[in-house]
Amino acid sequence: MQVSKDHPRYHSLVTREMMSDMVKEGIVAPTGLIAHGRGEAFDYLLGEVTSDSARCAERVAVALMLEARNPVISVNGNTAALAGKEVVALSKLVKAKIEVNLFHRSLERMEKVVGHMESLGAKDVLGRHPDAIVPGIASDRAKCTKAGIFSADVVLVPLEDGDRAGALVQLGKKVIAIDLNPLSRTARVAQITIVDEVARAIANMITMWPELSRDEAIRKKIISDFNNRANLTRSLELMCSRLTELADEGKP
Amino acid sequence: MQVSKDHPRYHSLVTREMMSDMVKEGIVAPTGLIAHGRGEAFDYLLGEVTSDSARCAERVAVALMLEARNPVISVNGNTAALAGKEVVALSKLVKAKIEVNLFHRSLERMEKVVGHMESLGAKDVLGRHPDAIVPGIASDRAKCTKAGIFSADVVLVPLEDGDRAGALVQLGKKVIAIDLNPLSRTARVAQITIVDEVARAIANMITMWPELSRDEAIRKKIISDFNNRANLTRSLELMCSRLTELADEGKP
Repeated sequence: MQVSKDHPRYHSLVTREMMSDMVKEGIVAPTGLIAHGRGEAFDYLLGEVTSDSARCAERVAVALMLEARNPVISVNGNTAALAGKEVVALSKLVKAKIEVNLFHRSLERMEKVVGHMESLGAKDVLGRHPDAIVPGIASDRAKCTKAGIFSADVVLVPLEDGDRAGALVQLGKKVIAIDLNPLSRTARVAQITIVDEVARAIANMITMWPELSRDEAIRKKIISDFNNRANLTRSLELMCSRLTELADEGKP
Repeated sequence: MQVSKDHPRYHSLVTREMMSDMVKEGIVAPTGLIAHGRGEAFDYLLGEVTSDSARCAERVAVALMLEARNPVISVNGNTAALAGKEVVALSKLVKAKIEVNLFHRSLERMEKVVGHMESLGAKDVLGRHPDAIVPGIASDRAKCTKAGIFSADVVLVPLEDGDRAGALVQLGKKVIAIDLNPLSRTARVAQITIVDEVARAIANMITMWPELSRDEAIRKKIISDFNNRANLTRSLELMCSRLTELADEGKP
């Protein structure tokens, strides 16, 4: 479909068409489009910009990944489609492994998502040959690799569902979630919750890397100072004030 | 996919799978799933129940349709999938025509959506043979029928986009929108805005019919008393208070 650049929701419409194409390619699951729509709605309430509280969580996330022994970025279809490039760049900077994990798992789809990440420059993508299980998850999402998520100390889970995020915390991982819904189970259960759009969040994290990579003292300080619950409350307060503001703008 | 009844989001997950199946059947467009996701997010903020302000707008909508000379319900893929049954029942009670109008229009898809409505008991569904144009819309959504939307005085547009809702208002129609986002262009431009989930909204309207159908004085009174802007503000205020409440619940 042709989208006019004058349309007030141009960027959003182009992303929708891209996501719809990604379904045809077998990278995004059909229900992944519904998840994307939920994200769009919450991003709309955030004004489609990174908030101060998100930026704060993103800094802590970078610091934590740099301090980690074996950091892993867990990638699903939506993350690959929306922020594949950003994931590859971040993984190289913080020396994190990439592991593909799919809710709607099939060999064919796994191959497509891994292939998509490789086409963007990712090396040694894990996920094709799972050899371990995250306990407490009923579905195929439990499948993981010993070298990757199973032995990771820090896992970045963009666009995760609540069950798996909780199971990873139970397994003793430090879980960093990227989730536009500050009230989701994922957002509540993760130790670091970034309430931001996934591509924007990871692009920000990349810009934070130079400073944080050379200053261990700052890393340790921002990690120990961080209070996820208080930070989440700030995101909620922002959404409330945006709702009120938009309501006022809407008055003719 | 098998969804466990114990899942905290059971109802939502079942609807997602149904919508995903409707894409395979060609009734829902892939980007319709994204729209559904946006609706889900706003419904979540409403607590997934009909608010007092929505109920108020639903009563006015029924009154207006009963007072209308030629009321029409405009049906797209998502409306057919989510609330086809309810649309058919309401159309019979208020003697409204049903006209299918698609953003992603093709003869094949038109046939499928009309066929779906007919399979639910709809008679004389319009839309297959458009013979008029709503001015001011660039896309195929401009196509309509003289007997239906073009000559309608009241049009119910569930899940409409802002361009078309605005063009219908410009054409002199009374537009009743059903939209879970109280800030959308559709919600702002319609004369009656129902901020509620589409199946719930129309099911409510059906229950309001007996009283309103026999009392013209009440119909005229609630129509003249209604202030859409004030009513929309109430929906926004509700979302704000829900956000705050959920934030409190989320505190461990």
